[in-house]
Amino acid sequence: MEKTKITLDENDIPRQWYNISADMPTPLRPPLNPKTLKPITPDELSAIFPMSIIEQEVSTQRWIDIPEEIINIYTLWRPSPLYRAHRLERALSTPSKIYYKYEGVSPAGSHKTNTSIAQAYYNKQAGIKRIATETGAGQWGSALALAGSFFGLDITVYMVKVSFNQKPYRRIQMESWGAKVIPSPSDTTNSGRAILQKDPDNNGSLGIAISEAIEVAATNKDTNYSLGSVLNHVLLHQTVIGLECKKQLELVNDYPDVVIGCCGGGSNLGGVSFPFLYDKINGKALRVIAVEPESCPTLTKGEFRYDFGDTAGLTPLLMLHTLGHDFIPPAIHAGGLRYHADAPQVCQLVQDGLIEARAYGQLSVFEAALLFAKTEGIIPAPESSHAIRCAIDEALISKEEGKAKTILFNLSGHGNLDMMAYASYLEGKIKDYEYPDGLIKESLSKLPVIS
Amino acid sequence: MEKTKITLDENDIPRQWYNISADMPTPLRPPLNPKTLKPITPDELSAIFPMSIIEQEVSTQRWIDIPEEIINIYTLWRPSPLYRAHRLERALSTPSKIYYKYEGVSPAGSHKTNTSIAQAYYNKQAGIKRIATETGAGQWGSALALAGSFFGLDITVYMVKVSFNQKPYRRIQMESWGAKVIPSPSDTTNSGRAILQKDPDNNGSLGIAISEAIEVAATNKDTNYSLGSVLNHVLLHQTVIGLECKKQLELVNDYPDVVIGCCGGGSNLGGVSFPFLYDKINGKALRVIAVEPESCPTLTKGEFRYDFGDTAGLTPLLMLHTLGHDFIPPAIHAGGLRYHADAPQVCQLVQDGLIEARAYGQLSVFEAALLFAKTEGIIPAPESSHAIRCAIDEALISKEEGKAKTILFNLSGHGNLDMMAYASYLEGKIKDYEYPDGLIKESLSKLPVIS
Repeated sequence: MEKTKITLDENDIPRQWYNISADMPTPLRPPLNPKTLKPITPDELSAIFPMSIIEQEVSTQRWIDIPEEIINIYTLWRPSPLYRAHRLERALSTPSKIYYKYEGVSPAGSHKTNTSIAQAYYNKQAGIKRIATETGAGQWGSALALAGSFFGLDITVYMVKVSFNQKPYRRIQMESWGAKVIPSPSDTTNSGRAILQKDPDNNGSLGIAISEAIEVAATNKDTNYSLGSVLNHVLLHQTVIGLECKKQLELVNDYPDVVIGCCGGGSNLGGVSFPFLYDKINGKALRVIAVEPESCPTLTKGEFRYDFGDTAGLTPLLMLHTLGHDFIPPAIHAGGLRYHADAPQVCQLVQDGLIEARAYGQLSVFEAALLFAKTEGIIPAPESSHAIRCAIDEALISKEEGKAKTILFNLSGHGNLDMMAYASYLEGKIKDYEYPDGLIKESLSKLPVIS
Repeated sequence: MEKTKITLDENDIPRQWYNISADMPTPLRPPLNPKTLKPITPDELSAIFPMSIIEQEVSTQRWIDIPEEIINIYTLWRPSPLYRAHRLERALSTPSKIYYKYEGVSPAGSHKTNTSIAQAYYNKQAGIKRIATETGAGQWGSALALAGSFFGLDITVYMVKVSFNQKPYRRIQMESWGAKVIPSPSDTTNSGRAILQKDPDNNGSLGIAISEAIEVAATNKDTNYSLGSVLNHVLLHQTVIGLECKKQLELVNDYPDVVIGCCGGGSNLGGVSFPFLYDKINGKALRVIAVEPESCPTLTKGEFRYDFGDTAGLTPLLMLHTLGHDFIPPAIHAGGLRYHADAPQVCQLVQDGLIEARAYGQLSVFEAALLFAKTEGIIPAPESSHAIRCAIDEALISKEEGKAKTILFNLSGHGNLDMMAYASYLEGKIKDYEYPDGLIKESLSKLPVIS
């Protein structure tokens, strides 16, 4: 029997998250209050986040304990399996070894539950009754809906209207866990009403949905806001992925030459790679690759500067790679990667040369996804398929070079609820996107200059 | 930390299937040729099945080796986890322990892959190039599509037309793995054409789809037929479920008082329970419960007699509990339980008092499913939710009686692709079905009498 699945016992679930802020060669630039351009204080954030989360956000402590209550829920799907992709390797005739960590085993189907459970826990501890959030593709909304059901918290999800209408399966999944799902823009908030008054048929955007959720959190004392990516505490919670990978690879006496994750906001990439970057910062030879869609090329074509985290400009200014906060990427099937910027931690590490970035078009990504489905069985989420494309390319390069490598990528979620994207591909309806000349440059030129 | 998930290493995957035909107190009555009423010979079956499968079908050898090639693929999801349902227990305030085996971790999302992989393997060994099959709800078709992709076999799935139109996600899933999916009735077979000539708008039925698939297999030398339940070899392949459960419960020093599975054709019930029934036959105290829908009450209201396995009357006559082979159960959301009969092995064991049968209405089943989703996280398949309903009831009875029990049920699949069923329930559109008086009696009265 060939060793395919490297499993750990639930006693092997990490007891601490790894905080890369403790080890970054260049410390993070602070988030700024957009009015004063001074660093945001914890107090300013406390209207929408519990203090324990704010402390994690600014912490430079290397290891942060995971509360027992969170571990008890993690046991439902963690430790997640690490697979050796024997069949994919054979299909590629590569001398390299390909491993993938599979986060789709969580009940909501992606890595997002690693942080939704933690965020729900800390909010519950702080006496909060309700969490408001936004969702585009639906992965984050469903992860938070699940977390809410475990902790008895009401969850209100503002779902981008076009997704609400096109993705009924995601909506019903959230409702099955007891969440309230509201198509955004809605008449439940001032920001929603303002948009509907101007344009009653507005289909919504992630930016608008964020505005609605933040407004609800800021104006209701018992309600907080929750974000599924980008922020330091979110990436922190995801490091259980990489910590488990290290333990699993040790069991087979292996260590990766390359670690790969797709990158939308950056949370699954951070989760799988930060524990390995700790080794790299300490001298280990290792590459980390962030993979993004050509249609939203934040790390490969964006600028590293201060910008808003949302489209409407309600958040603090963050130092990150951005295409401009009102840049609207084309509608691609990897909805979770359609974000105008990336996590500040990921961006600073790219800036410092510790993470490489690469972009792929949709066609080559779906081609890779189907090869993976037919060899490894799992139909991957379109987002995760970007990491598969890159892993396959790395394996093919190693074949040309005649050098065997050990490649690790994070399969952040399954594609069971993304079947319409596969239908589009199988029917030949998916095309690669080419930017009109100067579009990104124009969007960036609108940003205020902050030195 | 409370012990939630009992995991096994891939080295713990069973190396042999358990064949209950070796131990049944009353031997199975043989399948009969409907024309001669004499027992079917292996040769008569060889037009549509490989000889290795036929041998398993008639074998009375207790243990049958699992080939290494099948184990290598099983490692992609096996051993599947066994969970202790702590949160569900607390929600019920029951003194009992509830365990569930989770088969939804397979890439196709249900236990069906345990046999589809085996059947594809044996057909490949026999030089077969293509397998034809039918699917209603889609679980079986997708499991065989996946197996075909692993062994390089062409898979043709006749999908009941109403499902083909209503369940695009399932169809696309099968196509993503490379299968050809044809809405049935179709113009690709004589039986399909005959029906379309009479009724061009015919929406199809499982019976018609079986006829089309068998016709294709019988008339093409390189094509065989494959069935996802009912037959002995199918239930044999599923016994990996129960064998793993025994090992997992041993690890926590436990043993079930009750073993529960939903029952459509009987394969997941057989899979989880037969290894325990071996103990029961040898004197161990233990109950096994088969749970079926009130709308298709084969074991609770059917008759034990010879009948056809399909609607059109193309199969051998099998000794089983039946509602009559042309009985059309109402359209319920647990499509995988809409079968007019049950596996001969299960029926004989019910007849001998070794398995109990119980029926539930849809409303109480969905109520149980949502309680499970909100406490244990996983949104269950509507079929599997019948087992959940029964496990909850057993836990509640034990609370009334003040007696702690150990309850084990099989969660045969997830409900990620059944969201429309949940939407119907959440919108109050699901009703329990009440039979018109005498409907089942009338259907049974049409059957030929065979002594």
